[in-house]
Amino acid sequence: MSDEKSFHMTPDEFRRHGHAVIDWIADYQARIESFPVLSQVKPGEIRAALPVNPPAQGEPFDALLKDVEKLILPGVTHWQSPNFFAYFPCNASGPGILGDLLSSGLGVQGMLWSTSPACTELETHVMDWLVDMLGLPKKFMSSSAGGGVIQDTASSAALCALLAGRERATNYVSNKKGCDGRLVAYASTQTHSSLQKAAMISGIGADNLRLIEVDQNLATRPDVLAKQIDADRRAGLTPFFVCATIGTTSSNAMDPIAAIAEVCHQHKLWLHVDAAMSGTAMLCPEFRHLQNGIELADSYNFNPHKWMFTNFDCNCFWVADRKALIQTLSILPEYLRNQATESGAVIDYRDWHIQLGRRFRSLKLWFVIRHYGIEGLQHHIRQHVQLAQQFAEWVRNDARFELAAPAPLNLVCFRHKAGDAANQTIMDRLNRGGDLFLTHTKLNGKLTLRLSVGQTHTQARHVENAWKRIREEAREFATAG
Amino acid sequence: MSDEKSFHMTPDEFRRHGHAVIDWIADYQARIESFPVLSQVKPGEIRAALPVNPPAQGEPFDALLKDVEKLILPGVTHWQSPNFFAYFPCNASGPGILGDLLSSGLGVQGMLWSTSPACTELETHVMDWLVDMLGLPKKFMSSSAGGGVIQDTASSAALCALLAGRERATNYVSNKKGCDGRLVAYASTQTHSSLQKAAMISGIGADNLRLIEVDQNLATRPDVLAKQIDADRRAGLTPFFVCATIGTTSSNAMDPIAAIAEVCHQHKLWLHVDAAMSGTAMLCPEFRHLQNGIELADSYNFNPHKWMFTNFDCNCFWVADRKALIQTLSILPEYLRNQATESGAVIDYRDWHIQLGRRFRSLKLWFVIRHYGIEGLQHHIRQHVQLAQQFAEWVRNDARFELAAPAPLNLVCFRHKAGDAANQTIMDRLNRGGDLFLTHTKLNGKLTLRLSVGQTHTQARHVENAWKRIREEAREFATAG
Repeated sequence: MSDEKSFHMTPDEFRRHGHAVIDWIADYQARIESFPVLSQVKPGEIRAALPVNPPAQGEPFDALLKDVEKLILPGVTHWQSPNFFAYFPCNASGPGILGDLLSSGLGVQGMLWSTSPACTELETHVMDWLVDMLGLPKKFMSSSAGGGVIQDTASSAALCALLAGRERATNYVSNKKGCDGRLVAYASTQTHSSLQKAAMISGIGADNLRLIEVDQNLATRPDVLAKQIDADRRAGLTPFFVCATIGTTSSNAMDPIAAIAEVCHQHKLWLHVDAAMSGTAMLCPEFRHLQNGIELADSYNFNPHKWMFTNFDCNCFWVADRKALIQTLSILPEYLRNQATESGAVIDYRDWHIQLGRRFRSLKLWFVIRHYGIEGLQHHIRQHVQLAQQFAEWVRNDARFELAAPAPLNLVCFRHKAGDAANQTIMDRLNRGGDLFLTHTKLNGKLTLRLSVGQTHTQARHVENAWKRIREEAREFATAG
Repeated sequence: MSDEKSFHMTPDEFRRHGHAVIDWIADYQARIESFPVLSQVKPGEIRAALPVNPPAQGEPFDALLKDVEKLILPGVTHWQSPNFFAYFPCNASGPGILGDLLSSGLGVQGMLWSTSPACTELETHVMDWLVDMLGLPKKFMSSSAGGGVIQDTASSAALCALLAGRERATNYVSNKKGCDGRLVAYASTQTHSSLQKAAMISGIGADNLRLIEVDQNLATRPDVLAKQIDADRRAGLTPFFVCATIGTTSSNAMDPIAAIAEVCHQHKLWLHVDAAMSGTAMLCPEFRHLQNGIELADSYNFNPHKWMFTNFDCNCFWVADRKALIQTLSILPEYLRNQATESGAVIDYRDWHIQLGRRFRSLKLWFVIRHYGIEGLQHHIRQHVQLAQQFAEWVRNDARFELAAPAPLNLVCFRHKAGDAANQTIMDRLNRGGDLFLTHTKLNGKLTLRLSVGQTHTQARHVENAWKRIREEAREFATAG
């Protein structure tokens, strides 16, 4: 039965088809500005073009690639277009894509050190590098009592932080006995919705996540936080966890980390700091004042898959006390036991997150850091911030528009003064037009447009064109304003 | 500031470096049998060769690829080697890798339908295809009240199932109010450890996950389950969830789904069925008797990233009642609101799992299904099962060895009769020798070797050689047995 019939792609076929896919992506990058940024298809249109039944026999690879072009591409919203200004960036880059491709090719599982030592050790190494690169406290380094791990998303990292805080507060009992409904966590009205989701998942309950009032800059008010904690304590509840944000999703608001940390310290609460997008800015020393107080945090995370040219998924999560995290998430069935683990000399990252299996994600991060160097990363981050600041300046100088929030980095929240309906119309027309894609939020009850600069290839001409197109679509509202 | 200085890889550079990476992977595939399957490095060895500090300036791409070869490869355990018989397979394939590469190249986020309609619609389509391909009940199709979603791992899927069950049992109140420590879930002593982790994470508590006794085949005993549920009810607790397994991790034991479902139905418990590896076998009608009763399950999952040639991560999770899942996990902040979502005409997969962000994972699954066709997938699954059955036959016919559990599919649990120490020695020598990699478990208190057949390129000669090497390393124990 040796050398039996095979349907597999041979290495030589892989080489040929692989080159074709690489070429397709290179061509896609070169022509990306020719597509409408936001897909213009209607619900059900993509599915309607797909065959109802799965194929009984295999098909040639060329047919697959043709169908990507013909059937899939019209349904793609082009997150990698330099005219993508919506949500947050989820930027990618050549070295990121190729590092991830190598990870697919090696196809290893990094759940235990022993299941692929390089997968664990490169991850630890790169996470230590990033502590230096971002000006984070030494207590997050693997040589201290803390350490870092790559997670999939900030949502998962927030959940892990909440769980570690929950367990520390209950002396690692709620893991075993279940929650008792008396634990209380704190975030702000502007904190990312994943905190609410984490409170739901963890058995804390969404009602036990207090959403603290913010100031005029949309930043958490530490005084209100302190009062709420006192009130909850008096009511016999158990405050245990606070999430502060460096750069909120909605408006890029900056919470005062040091002041919040002081409250947490007083009350012995776990402080998690979420810097999902804006953490990348800390590559540049001139922005690090925005993370003042970070040395007092128990955990911290940012997403290289947002603004640091590393394709999704790649979240970096650090804790100051790795024992608290491991004790929260560790399980060790017999079939995973091995000498390296028993020796205690290695990290087994399966104990650091929700999942068991894990991909070799540090490869792409390593590739990105080495391709750009600190210099290259800093250059492009500064460029993005400069472009956003230029845009904010244009808004400030146009009497029909106003800024809706401070713009400390690369996100500009602005609106036409003619009101919600006008802003909705402007946005819908821009997005239907296809030249660019931007999204909205609500700030102080008013519909607000968001221009988020961070796609890898966004340059001055793209932001200039965005401003031109915005003014064009706003023309009819000019006098009404 | 147009066309400013750039550190980015151009499309042409991407093409050139991309071809080099593809060639590296093709070469890696061609020479993979020349490496020791289990990495032979010592803890710290890989890190010690990496520069202490991150690079200030960027480096040429060729240097990166050279370092993968020189610094990383020695620390890789070769999961894609046809001589990998450890744990479970985590197999990959050409079409899987290239589909994933396209996903990296497109770099879209599929959190909402509108953020890339093709990402959502292809996923729904392929998940519906798989319902047919695996002989699953129609209630899991998107045209019914249920539906499927791609998750990262079976751990996350199990957690989502547990949460949906928790919420249904509490009338969607524990999401808001938190858990009360009275909810009880059920699995068996052989259920995957992720269920324990899910009980910890969800605030249920590990002590409230009852591990039901198994029969001589290591399958859950429905009578013991029913008795335990009765006892818990009498104690004033709230049974709400059962996890049954088609092919346990440790020994590939098959739980009697129909009998367990009957107990669940009587007591109105959520039944989740985990078929992480063995679900792939259901591509072949002759194995579907192993999932008898699946039409009574509330949720079900298997991992194409284990045995179905689709590289990690790719878990397929279905529910019979999608409203229960969505009501459990849904949150909708203003900045994610959009017309398509409000219309109710589309699926927004962010409400179907823990994370918010999501990759275009259906591309690789679509590529795999179309490349192989049902015929090709069936061929290779049957081949793996046949190889494992052949190995089991060799064990049965060798007086020094014995089978430690039934081998219904592609996993053979066996041991040398000379006892635990001998089996440990045999395994350690085999794994140090590098010709193959296998792992162990404990069954009925005895150390047991596991030969898991499922790597994409494993053929008869690899299994033959494994058996030859096992007997060689066992030679000294031959007379002692």
